[in-house]
Amino acid sequence: VVVAGLGYTSYLAFFSDARCSDKKSGLCNSLIRKNEAKVVTMVDVEDIADKAAFCRCWKTKNWPYCDGSHAEHNKVTGDNVGPIVVKRN
Amino acid sequence: VVVAGLGYTSYLAFFSDARCSDKKSGLCNSLIRKNEAKVVTMVDVEDIADKAAFCRCWKTKNWPYCDGSHAEHNKVTGDNVGPIVVKRN
Ligand code: FES
Ligand code: FES
Repeated sequence: VVVAGLGYTSYLAFFSDARCSDKKSGLCNSLIRKNEAKVVTMVDVEDIADKAAFCRCWKTKNWPYCDGSHAEHNKVTGDNVGPIVVKRN
Repeated sequence: VVVAGLGYTSYLAFFSDARCSDKKSGLCNSLIRKNEAKVVTMVDVEDIADKAAFCRCWKTKNWPYCDGSHAEHNKVTGDNVGPIVVKRN
C-alpha cells in the first residue's frame, strides 16, 4: 500500500501539468490563428458604419467579430467575458 | 495491486476536473470585473483621437486598454493573443 501510494504521488507530480494543459489551462485562445505568434487586429474607424462588436472570448466563428459564442463559453467555464462594441453616436 | 489501481482510477475520475479548474481551466478572465455577469465594453468612435488598443487577453492593469500584459500571458501559457487596435486613417 505504501509503495502504491508513492507511485500515485509521483504520477500526479509528473502528469498533473500535462493533464491540465490538455484542457488548455490558462489559454484564452485554443482556436484562432494558432499559426500566428500574436494575433493583433487593426481596424479603421472609417470602416465602422454604425457599430461593430469585436470578440474577446476567442470562441467566435466570425473572427474578429463577436457572433455570440461568448454565451456558451461563459456557461461552460463559468467565465464572464463579452465583446467590445465600437459605435458612432 | 489491482485494488490500488482501481482506487487510483476512481480518484482521477472524481478529482481531475477539480484539479484543472483550480488552475482556472478554460477561463479567459480570472481578474477583471468578476462581479459582473458579462463584461461588455462600449466605445464611441468619437472618443478615439488617433488610435486605441483594447485588451483581449484579460490581463491588463488598465482595462479596457491593452497595457502590454499579453506578452507575459503568452509567455507563461504558450498562448498567442493580442489586442484589437482601432485607428483613424
Ligand atoms: S463571441 Fe467572443 S465575445 Fe462574443
Ligand atoms: S494587455 Fe491584454 S491584449 Fe494587451
